[in-house]
Amino acid sequence: MDSQRQFDKELTELKKKLIHMAATAETMIDRAIRELVSRDQSPATVIPDYEQDLNRLQIEIDEMVLTLVATHQPVANDLRFLLGATKINSELERIGDLVVNITQNVETLIRQPELKPLIDIPRMAELASKMVRDSLHAFVKGDVLLAQSVIMTDDQVDALKNQVLRELLPHMATDPESIERGLALILISRHLERIGDHATNIAEDVIYVVQGRDVRHPRTPREK
Amino acid sequence: MDSQRQFDKELTELKKKLIHMAATAETMIDRAIRELVSRDQSPATVIPDYEQDLNRLQIEIDEMVLTLVATHQPVANDLRFLLGATKINSELERIGDLVVNITQNVETLIRQPELKPLIDIPRMAELASKMVRDSLHAFVKGDVLLAQSVIMTDDQVDALKNQVLRELLPHMATDPESIERGLALILISRHLERIGDHATNIAEDVIYVVQGRDVRHPRTPREK
Repeated sequence: MDSQRQFDKELTELKKKLIHMAATAETMIDRAIRELVSRDQSPATVIPDYEQDLNRLQIEIDEMVLTLVATHQPVANDLRFLLGATKINSELERIGDLVVNITQNVETLIRQPELKPLIDIPRMAELASKMVRDSLHAFVKGDVLLAQSVIMTDDQVDALKNQVLRELLPHMATDPESIERGLALILISRHLERIGDHATNIAEDVIYVVQGRDVRHPRTPREK
Repeated sequence: MDSQRQFDKELTELKKKLIHMAATAETMIDRAIRELVSRDQSPATVIPDYEQDLNRLQIEIDEMVLTLVATHQPVANDLRFLLGATKINSELERIGDLVVNITQNVETLIRQPELKPLIDIPRMAELASKMVRDSLHAFVKGDVLLAQSVIMTDDQVDALKNQVLRELLPHMATDPESIERGLALILISRHLERIGDHATNIAEDVIYVVQGRDVRHPRTPREK
């Protein structure tokens, strides 16, 4: 096989691994929040195994990028893609860490009576999950429009986070017994918001990789 | 100038930029927390400018790495260093985002009477700041021992975060008026903890770059 075909083959393999990593992160989010809502089973029984999968994939992807850059010495777009892959790789691993944090708060919550029916948090989880999926598909397909839609969804996630806070503070203020649970729910909403931020970072990296244009900090340098 | 000397010169420039970025992040942490304690001036007057500096440096560093890899086609250690630089670059930029979040909570707090004298949070900020500084010095000097000390400091930061929570929950439970301020302090402690996590990520990257050995996930694959 010639060098270019070998490179393309390995690139396809790398993309597959990234999609697999994103799917794992998505499953983690869905499982953690599903157990929060259903209270059937502790998410702590499954989440750590998924997290180990993410960690393993992160290392494999970094090694693949190192090998590909060293062996094929790609330039321009291919190089940008590979550097983008190592950044996106780190974002996905961080998302896994955040789900582990969510799981700890879910543990606190399911040991106690339900504070209130949950609507906004499952909605946030759904949006965050979709953002992760879409941002990775945008990356492997080089789809700038899809990346832009991820960035726009982030505002909805932020709005829901504020709504969670607004709803819980009065509960906490009138019923001291609800403070621990209220805080756990607020922290879960913050973790989900940060997952949305990571997906947004990925989407911004996609536009950077595809267009060679940096949208990560539109106001840089100091325009505001 | 021959190619190797040119490469070394640009590498020195890159290291300088990374140290400058870390120093900016440190200053941001110090300023935000100093204003929380002294209540002299809103940190919102200075923090956004520093954040713009970080954003600009992030883009410059990524561009330098791209150019260096494409022009000099480094392998082995040099390549590992450059890929490490783009990861560390992202970590520093995230630290800036977290200080912006801290600033928002400081704003909430300094508009209201002081809840309690602050001891643990300034201590956390000091440790987090030092972790950022040390992790970057470890990177540019390839100092594994210094990187290990950063990783160990993270436990102290985590312990302080738990202490902040333990101290504030009773206040919040007995005095509903303190809930908003208590929550703001808890969120500041979480943001500082996450800054410590980013410094730990950097320190782990250092060991990976220097030793070619991955300490990022010591329990991978599934040993626990």
